[in-house]
Amino acid sequence: MCGIVGYVGKSQAAPILLDGLSKLEYRGYDSAGVAVYSDDHIEVVKTKGRLKVLSDMLDGGKNLPGTVGIGHTRWATHGEPSDVNSHPHMSGDGRFAVVHNGIIENYLVLKNRLIEKGFHFVSETDTEVIAHLVEYYYKGDIMDTMRSLLNAMEGSYALGIIRADKPDEIVAVRKDSPLIVGLSDEGNFIASDIPALLNYTRDIYHLDEKEIVILRQDGVSIYNMDGEPVNKKVFHVDWDVSAAEKGGYEHFMIKEIMEQPKALADTLKPRIQDGRVVLDDIKLTAEDLKDIHKIDIVACGSAYHTGVVGKYVIEELTRKPVEVDLASEFRYRSPILDQHTLVIIISQSGETADTLAALRYAKTQGARTLSIVNVVGSSIANQSDDVLYTWAGPEIAVATTKAYSCQLGVLYLLALYIGDLLGTIPADVYRDYVAELLILPDKIQSILEHKEDIQYFASRNFGAKDVFFIGRNVDYALTLEGSLKLKEISYIHSEAYAAGELKHGTISLIEDGTLVVAVATLDRLFDKTMSNVKEVKARGAYVLGLTTENNRKIEQSCDFVFYIPETLDLLLPSLAVIPLQIFSYYMALMKGCDIDKPRNLAKSVTVE
Amino acid sequence: MCGIVGYVGKSQAAPILLDGLSKLEYRGYDSAGVAVYSDDHIEVVKTKGRLKVLSDMLDGGKNLPGTVGIGHTRWATHGEPSDVNSHPHMSGDGRFAVVHNGIIENYLVLKNRLIEKGFHFVSETDTEVIAHLVEYYYKGDIMDTMRSLLNAMEGSYALGIIRADKPDEIVAVRKDSPLIVGLSDEGNFIASDIPALLNYTRDIYHLDEKEIVILRQDGVSIYNMDGEPVNKKVFHVDWDVSAAEKGGYEHFMIKEIMEQPKALADTLKPRIQDGRVVLDDIKLTAEDLKDIHKIDIVACGSAYHTGVVGKYVIEELTRKPVEVDLASEFRYRSPILDQHTLVIIISQSGETADTLAALRYAKTQGARTLSIVNVVGSSIANQSDDVLYTWAGPEIAVATTKAYSCQLGVLYLLALYIGDLLGTIPADVYRDYVAELLILPDKIQSILEHKEDIQYFASRNFGAKDVFFIGRNVDYALTLEGSLKLKEISYIHSEAYAAGELKHGTISLIEDGTLVVAVATLDRLFDKTMSNVKEVKARGAYVLGLTTENNRKIEQSCDFVFYIPETLDLLLPSLAVIPLQIFSYYMALMKGCDIDKPRNLAKSVTVE
Repeated sequence: MCGIVGYVGKSQAAPILLDGLSKLEYRGYDSAGVAVYSDDHIEVVKTKGRLKVLSDMLDGGKNLPGTVGIGHTRWATHGEPSDVNSHPHMSGDGRFAVVHNGIIENYLVLKNRLIEKGFHFVSETDTEVIAHLVEYYYKGDIMDTMRSLLNAMEGSYALGIIRADKPDEIVAVRKDSPLIVGLSDEGNFIASDIPALLNYTRDIYHLDEKEIVILRQDGVSIYNMDGEPVNKKVFHVDWDVSAAEKGGYEHFMIKEIMEQPKALADTLKPRIQDGRVVLDDIKLTAEDLKDIHKIDIVACGSAYHTGVVGKYVIEELTRKPVEVDLASEFRYRSPILDQHTLVIIISQSGETADTLAALRYAKTQGARTLSIVNVVGSSIANQSDDVLYTWAGPEIAVATTKAYSCQLGVLYLLALYIGDLLGTIPADVYRDYVAELLILPDKIQSILEHKEDIQYFASRNFGAKDVFFIGRNVDYALTLEGSLKLKEISYIHSEAYAAGELKHGTISLIEDGTLVVAVATLDRLFDKTMSNVKEVKARGAYVLGLTTENNRKIEQSCDFVFYIPETLDLLLPSLAVIPLQIFSYYMALMKGCDIDKPRNLAKSVTVE
Repeated sequence: MCGIVGYVGKSQAAPILLDGLSKLEYRGYDSAGVAVYSDDHIEVVKTKGRLKVLSDMLDGGKNLPGTVGIGHTRWATHGEPSDVNSHPHMSGDGRFAVVHNGIIENYLVLKNRLIEKGFHFVSETDTEVIAHLVEYYYKGDIMDTMRSLLNAMEGSYALGIIRADKPDEIVAVRKDSPLIVGLSDEGNFIASDIPALLNYTRDIYHLDEKEIVILRQDGVSIYNMDGEPVNKKVFHVDWDVSAAEKGGYEHFMIKEIMEQPKALADTLKPRIQDGRVVLDDIKLTAEDLKDIHKIDIVACGSAYHTGVVGKYVIEELTRKPVEVDLASEFRYRSPILDQHTLVIIISQSGETADTLAALRYAKTQGARTLSIVNVVGSSIANQSDDVLYTWAGPEIAVATTKAYSCQLGVLYLLALYIGDLLGTIPADVYRDYVAELLILPDKIQSILEHKEDIQYFASRNFGAKDVFFIGRNVDYALTLEGSLKLKEISYIHSEAYAAGELKHGTISLIEDGTLVVAVATLDRLFDKTMSNVKEVKARGAYVLGLTTENNRKIEQSCDFVFYIPETLDLLLPSLAVIPLQIFSYYMALMKGCDIDKPRNLAKSVTVE
């Protein structure tokens, strides 16, 4: 969950490294560093704190000469953020510098073995082990060295290495952590993600597991684990650069919130033709589906929350039982899977470590897999039987908004597609869903036009210490996301509860003035949820109600109300999530939080 | 979720009512009141606050003469706790007084209709509607009146009614809320629960839905909905009275924590004979089980948490897929159920409203039902196809401890029983489980003997504002309970997280000094959880670690450690829950909280 950049070429390396790292800060930003071959030795400059600190030390890179280097922006896993724990790490003899993203699981065993052999450690990181190991294994042949290194390490890694005795090369490798190679006439690159390279090239290689790459100014060689050369196809990135920039907004998060009508339309509309959901990109047939007894949705974080909504939607429309699992739990609990199980994997980045591992586990058990992913060519996309891409475009803010909306959109499409093939949806119901899906983006637009109402509410309530979200059914599923959004960027301890469950314990936390957000968009459960609102009101809670335009009677129960347009019950979360995102954004803004880069968090979680 | 007592007999009523109510305070205690027929009219005395306030007003009941009366202790649902919203409620003409437990769902419709007819309301409660309705319907025949009343009301209720024109009778009825009748030569009783009557009688009637009861000093008549007399069997309570009293402990909660070795032994041992699990009380055969494709566990609160552990246990030992649902969600989401589904219902009281409704729904869908219940003769026990009782004895503290442990014990027995019938457990594994189950009570005893270590830790940390519990697999399932326990009695906002999920958002709440409780009892996941501990430590967290005696290396990662004995992986929650209960108890004790009766909570949640 760190960011890596490497460059070897005709230009000065340091400014390019710093620029690339600035596009990767969403992956971690507790410290940063670069290593450049300069004046016959490897010069390392690194420091705790944001990239800006490092950049100032180097005058934007200008005062560090040299044309070959590697850089790193860190999200701490082993050892607290500090200068000494920052990357790059050097071998004891100063001949090798290493940047690493991932976790070396057996680092303690390796470290103890190296200490016995006389190696001296200066940091608490797992990465320093790699630098010493490279020195230990290196006998003049870097391919041999890499093979020994890969053999020794257990865990996940993307590595960039430079060495003093061959200063015109970068060596790189990845396993279970993302790393791409960028190609240009001016030089070649490695990076954790595409935005780091968009200023320099749009031609990239995706790397497979344990492929070893040697980069020089004039070319890139790739070898498989056995040292045999590999031919790769160049992938051309066709994103708009501006999509990865803020475009006039104060933060990426609000920009991405406002982009949702377009992102959702891009995701839905090409897949609806003549009133029918057409998923040409997947191979799942009616025959296949009849043979599926159970669907497992596996994901982490917000993607998991779309899965919780998805369960209600898919069960209702297809009558197939659906289980939703946290990826980090799924992979270690020997879930019951076989060829009659369809496993749906959801991940924005397509590189989420636990989710990727869950996918692989599901495949070993013979399950059919389908992934919902935003990043084309990512590991999860590559390794699933079927992929449905969300066309959200690059999402930069750590707190996801448009990716969530698009994942939900794809789940709706998929439920309709499966239900249609299985014959579980009456024709008129199907027609209504398709028609409503097509106008969801416009309805989201109309909600966005009232965002100032939420801003006003936030300006009055951003001092809240604890916030409780309650709802029933899909409203409950949605509150899980509303609560996570609030806590991740505003640092307010919030929690989501099934409204009927609150009284089994948590209601003891309600006291005078406690803020409760009650989501009650479903007409059929409106009265039940209002009963629960009365219970918290009776204990002094201050209640923000969220419902649809025809439930005006909510004003009798809640202190402040925000209305969303009507739509079909199961589609309501698509609309109701919008005010909750806006609410989190303004709460965090009023509190003066660093919205796009909340403390401790990284965008793409590529460690367990 | 209120408590009701009624008495008609030879003695003065008020002292008996107050004594009975004192045993029901666990059901609600934001206000209390009594109505007694005295000096040719119904005298109502009621007040906001704990029962003690009312008792002082009445000099322990002495200054309110009369031998027929009803009493109530309230947990607010409609209208804030206040004098005027307290029960009993009177009809406008002063001829009827009513106490009510439950919720009248259509009270607003009824209220508006009565207002149109000229009735005047003084409170915000749904109950006042009942008092006016009785007046409205009463034409001299109370059975006619009751039938009209029951027809008019939607929702749940246990009612006790006295009337000025027939002052030697109490009328009572129940639907979806508990109510029992007590019988003695000195007089007769109604009550929400048995402990209220133990000072007077051990002979009781359990009432079925909508049975109407007329109590007089010299007898009790019971009629069905159609007014036909019903013959009931007397149920004799053979509890030890002392079991319902504190026995030297400062609180019921710590008494019940300390009783767990006995409670668990009582629950397990009679069902293990010659090394085999024998569940004579259930009718589920191997044939039946082969026909079961899926198991649904449905419960609320802590009982739901035992279900989450149960999923790991049952799936592992039986390879049947298990789904766990909150009862309040289950009943409103059209779950996929049929005759191939076994629905396991868990409830201490056997009266939990949502859980009872879930059971009924499951039966309408043709599912096989089995309940795990602590109260014999309760509604859930009566209405399930099979019942396995937890023999925990009466649990008085609102925060459950021994019932949780016994529910878990029964789930272990059930998993072994099913796995044995299906042939999914190797003989040696089965033997190991049975042997370990038998010594669990002793291991719990050994943990209890070190409770002062936890007390010491609590004394240093009770100022914590936010606490996060983390764990993986059954450790995660257990942290759900650990967190709930802490929040319900200490009012500290705590939250449980799957350890691998924390970094997908919630880790942003970790700052210098945040208290994290890491449960890492499973050897095979110990290193993974320690990686997550390192992540929170790197952000400043102060960590209490909980593991088994052979994981001493935890001391490298955690600030304070509590050890539990070794046992089989799936049984570890039975041991690990004990220190978490003790932790909550001492945190709340140090904070000076009202441990047995936490604010806003009631023991048995008989409303939605």
